[in-house]
Amino acid sequence: MHSQVSDADINGVENKLKSLGLEANISRGVERTIIGAIGDERKIQKESLESLPGVENVIRVVKPYKIVARESQAKNTVIDIKGNLIGGKKIQVIAGPCSVETQSQMDAAAQGVALAGCRFMRGGAFKPRTSPYSFQGKGVEGLKMFRQAADPHNLPIVTELMDVRFLDDFLEHGVDVIQIGTRNMQNFDLLKEVGKTHIPVILKRGLCATLSEWLMSAEYIAAGGNHNIILCERGVRSFEKAYRNMLDVTAIPVLKKETHLPVIVDPSHACGKTWLVPALSKAAIAAGADGILVEMHPKPCDAWCDADQALTPEELKNLMGEMRGIAEAVGREL
Amino acid sequence: MHSQVSDADINGVENKLKSLGLEANISRGVERTIIGAIGDERKIQKESLESLPGVENVIRVVKPYKIVARESQAKNTVIDIKGNLIGGKKIQVIAGPCSVETQSQMDAAAQGVALAGCRFMRGGAFKPRTSPYSFQGKGVEGLKMFRQAADPHNLPIVTELMDVRFLDDFLEHGVDVIQIGTRNMQNFDLLKEVGKTHIPVILKRGLCATLSEWLMSAEYIAAGGNHNIILCERGVRSFEKAYRNMLDVTAIPVLKKETHLPVIVDPSHACGKTWLVPALSKAAIAAGADGILVEMHPKPCDAWCDADQALTPEELKNLMGEMRGIAEAVGREL
Amino acid sequence: MHSQVSDADINGVENKLKSLGLEANISRGVERTIIGAIGDERKIQKESLESLPGVENVIRVVKPYKIVARESQAKNTVIDIKGNLIGGKKIQVIAGPCSVETQSQMDAAAQGVALAGCRFMRGGAFKPRTSPYSFQGKGVEGLKMFRQAADPHNLPIVTELMDVRFLDDFLEHGVDVIQIGTRNMQNFDLLKEVGKTHIPVILKRGLCATLSEWLMSAEYIAAGGNHNIILCERGVRSFEKAYRNMLDVTAIPVLKKETHLPVIVDPSHACGKTWLVPALSKAAIAAGADGILVEMHPKPCDAWCDADQALTPEELKNLMGEMRGIAEAVGREL
Amino acid sequence: MHSQVSDADINGVENKLKSLGLEANISRGVERTIIGAIGDERKIQKESLESLPGVENVIRVVKPYKIVARESQAKNTVIDIKGNLIGGKKIQVIAGPCSVETQSQMDAAAQGVALAGCRFMRGGAFKPRTSPYSFQGKGVEGLKMFRQAADPHNLPIVTELMDVRFLDDFLEHGVDVIQIGTRNMQNFDLLKEVGKTHIPVILKRGLCATLSEWLMSAEYIAAGGNHNIILCERGVRSFEKAYRNMLDVTAIPVLKKETHLPVIVDPSHACGKTWLVPALSKAAIAAGADGILVEMHPKPCDAWCDADQALTPEELKNLMGEMRGIAEAVGREL
Repeated sequence: MHSQVSDADINGVENKLKSLGLEANISRGVERTIIGAIGDERKIQKESLESLPGVENVIRVVKPYKIVARESQAKNTVIDIKGNLIGGKKIQVIAGPCSVETQSQMDAAAQGVALAGCRFMRGGAFKPRTSPYSFQGKGVEGLKMFRQAADPHNLPIVTELMDVRFLDDFLEHGVDVIQIGTRNMQNFDLLKEVGKTHIPVILKRGLCATLSEWLMSAEYIAAGGNHNIILCERGVRSFEKAYRNMLDVTAIPVLKKETHLPVIVDPSHACGKTWLVPALSKAAIAAGADGILVEMHPKPCDAWCDADQALTPEELKNLMGEMRGIAEAVGREL
Repeated sequence: MHSQVSDADINGVENKLKSLGLEANISRGVERTIIGAIGDERKIQKESLESLPGVENVIRVVKPYKIVARESQAKNTVIDIKGNLIGGKKIQVIAGPCSVETQSQMDAAAQGVALAGCRFMRGGAFKPRTSPYSFQGKGVEGLKMFRQAADPHNLPIVTELMDVRFLDDFLEHGVDVIQIGTRNMQNFDLLKEVGKTHIPVILKRGLCATLSEWLMSAEYIAAGGNHNIILCERGVRSFEKAYRNMLDVTAIPVLKKETHLPVIVDPSHACGKTWLVPALSKAAIAAGADGILVEMHPKPCDAWCDADQALTPEELKNLMGEMRGIAEAVGREL
Repeated sequence: MHSQVSDADINGVENKLKSLGLEANISRGVERTIIGAIGDERKIQKESLESLPGVENVIRVVKPYKIVARESQAKNTVIDIKGNLIGGKKIQVIAGPCSVETQSQMDAAAQGVALAGCRFMRGGAFKPRTSPYSFQGKGVEGLKMFRQAADPHNLPIVTELMDVRFLDDFLEHGVDVIQIGTRNMQNFDLLKEVGKTHIPVILKRGLCATLSEWLMSAEYIAAGGNHNIILCERGVRSFEKAYRNMLDVTAIPVLKKETHLPVIVDPSHACGKTWLVPALSKAAIAAGADGILVEMHPKPCDAWCDADQALTPEELKNLMGEMRGIAEAVGREL
Repeated sequence: MHSQVSDADINGVENKLKSLGLEANISRGVERTIIGAIGDERKIQKESLESLPGVENVIRVVKPYKIVARESQAKNTVIDIKGNLIGGKKIQVIAGPCSVETQSQMDAAAQGVALAGCRFMRGGAFKPRTSPYSFQGKGVEGLKMFRQAADPHNLPIVTELMDVRFLDDFLEHGVDVIQIGTRNMQNFDLLKEVGKTHIPVILKRGLCATLSEWLMSAEYIAAGGNHNIILCERGVRSFEKAYRNMLDVTAIPVLKKETHLPVIVDPSHACGKTWLVPALSKAAIAAGADGILVEMHPKPCDAWCDADQALTPEELKNLMGEMRGIAEAVGREL
């Protein structure tokens, strides 16, 4: 409460809390009086208290997320995707091109992914592009190409869903993991729809989302019944101009404490430059990430988008070797 | 190009540009060689050049947006909504509650809006909420209530569309202005759909969107054929904890130079506190904004969301008076 | 406290508080136990409690600043500088070149300042420059030139102090207002030294300083005995690339609530572009600022630094006229 | 140049460049004309060109730093401090308390540092504190205690210099490495003074300094003749509230490419929490850092400042073991 608060103001807050089914604990300090709400504070609109007379500040004590909170489940969530586990001892590397371009490009990419020893493949059929004049993705046709390229290698496929109207197509073509992109982290209608399925979801962090907001978006999916959620840190916006986004490596151990969900990292979109990918990948694993989502293209110079951030198949293979050493140093396997 | 570049590298870039239909201008400086691309550089993927050998940095010279650029239209866009103009000499104030709650709440709100002298009303029937456990809006039923409350006062209605599947409902209930919220600024499928209509669109700035990204999102709508776009600055995320978002007042004159579209400001969501709204509203108009989008609720303490940022009808009326003086000082009318 | 806290942990915190001379109020909620500290919490190191077993989070309730807080002085501080008041009804405009270059440049500048109707003059003799190869200022010789140019017009002079070793020179040449620059906002030794004088101080906000940190730096000066402090908002660092810094206009009303000190705004350094200065100056006054610190140069194109952000004498005169209208609309005078 | 530029404008820029001793290369594109400056552009004030008629934007092509640039020295700088190398194959861990408190605390700390196998010790005698009411450090007396504690273990000492007036005391007490703190990264007078000595300097990154600004501050020291500079990343300010600062792990490989100077990381100040230190330390080494600067206190709960971020001697020893595995995985030694 404000420093010069009246008894009427204090009573006002107390009555408001009672009307919401909570009890009030009143603590009169030397300079301030503090009123604690006892009960389930998730029911309260913080703002409805802030607008009462005499109130200076309202602070939440309980976390706003429930299902995804570590408090509600001490054990790590481990997700089984066609026999490969995400969130367990093994670190998973999901590799592939930014976008599905042609069947031969996808075939070559799938071979590169498999040869490098990765167990998941990524590729975008629907592309969120800043400009309406850029290539927007192959769409449903791309899903088919992807499926056809990945199946001979038994690679589960990971691809981005941008629009609820295409969810049925994703189900029809058996997409193994649905990616929700950075720009859609708070597209709540989309989150609700994937929450109704049981397909594993990779939820990327919003461009400047706090960890709490990100976990609340995961809670949207979980609240619908789908608990197969993988969080993917991909860099946040900052003032720095020397590279694209700032990889938030601190988020990894903080998330491992706050939630039981697996946490992976996308170093390619974070930095936007191939030559930075190995250092960031190794840092992510050293900090405790459960996996890496990385761009690889059979011929990066010819890529239809993000050409500057894709590894070659050869570079991917080398990176797998480098990451193996780090994984072992932190008691994991690759 | 890098400081130690070879002739082969320079030829490589030159050939790549030629293959894209552009000419190369080569300028050899003391420490660096610079290659200029001559032609329509919008065709080029910046990244496809950055990945060529010897390239240090690729800089765009031409702006990526076209239709919305001031260069393509020197005159301000003025949008006529049922006889009230946005973008002209008159400053427009769009007021109303955060969310549609009940018919009586909306009736009282509409009366307050009209009595204060505002010519547009706002209200949310579909609400983007951080938590899945918060009130999610009245939905289509809310559109009806809103229409019924606003019509007796001839107030055009402004309301947010979050999901493409509800666009038909918006058309059916004659929504006058569609709002695209902060979290959906880069929901490209949604932008494309509203771009196919001719209903005026208020496009809010993303939480940490650059002005260039924002204008590209406007370009998405314009590219579909809908040029009735109003940009709404609503504060961006920052490190400061003393208030919610940082109102970017500099964006107003910069946008007025870069684009011919009207620019309005939402001081309520920017600061999150009623007592800050008047100062920010006046600053926005002083800086050249074409209007204000502000929250007003007949009984703020009982509001179902954002209770702490809504003005009372009385406060709105006072604010109109204060803004009138500022408007006149900058040669505008209210 | 953590959700699964033991009685021993609670006792531990209680004992720690007692050892620091405070009482504990223990409030056991449904999901969390909260311990309130009763007494002067400014004595406590937040971190020394955070490291105790069972503690989840420590939140300060009392503001860390005292002398500069509005709570300790309800009336605005008004500073009298040679008969001109800062912080009163009159808005003050402090104008002049970025740096002192030559006597004739300063003479011309002083004339421009006086003709425009400004009552204070600024100019830098010691310049903080990002590069060691840039012009570093005229030094003590510059102070003399400045004094000589300003005196015929009875203009109090405002100039930046970067190094404690030059404070005596500032005293000797009768500098009327000492400016502490952005990069030195937390140069605590410098703050302590100017705190020992009674010369009015303009304290600029650090590049990404929170309002609380800024007020704590003011508290450093005030704690030394010098209460003649003027806060100067000059834009903060952000992700936006379309202009230099983001002017934090919201800071103005928030500071007016938190402190009794005068608040002025530097639009020139905020935006870095002459053409943006008028819009930002007007916004600042509309939001409640007590004054403007603006760059003017007799011949901007020839300025030795920041040429692109200096107004001409003519532009300054026009701006004064524009600001007068805004000042009157908010009940002030220029 | 602007899209509608005149020949007179182009001539104006050409003449300005000639007057500065540079040549102009004029490239007329389809939509824009670009003028390249040929010669040493470091001489040019970017702003003096930006204010010329017809100029839209001025872009630097050459890096503003010289001595510290990788371009000027391909080989890594390796600094020899009493026989221990920083910047070579060996990773160095500099450990010790936040502040010098008592002789017995320092003696115990030194023993812990030595037992853990670290070869450098840190400790603050002069403390930059946000509040004037917090403990400000033991001052010169602290330097003596530090020296006395470290000498029996042959540990070179690292301590912060905040004020030029104490440089002589640092020389007298044989401080082995001078630390320039975050708040003083752009205290240019301080940088110039340490640039005149040959004592190795740890230059911490400013709270929101870009990599380019940071390297320019290093250039200030180098320009004075002192090339023994170690860069220390310590987290930057961000919007995230879940931890103190955001460790910029991407800065490590970017700096290793841009400069030949050693790069170390301070995980303690970055995150502000003991339990996060191991993850961040390992990430830093995996990303290519040359060392770690970490807080350790014999009894963290009793520390006079930053109690919540200090490791115990036991935790430091464990961390050394964990880092050893990472160091080996990246081909280094600890």
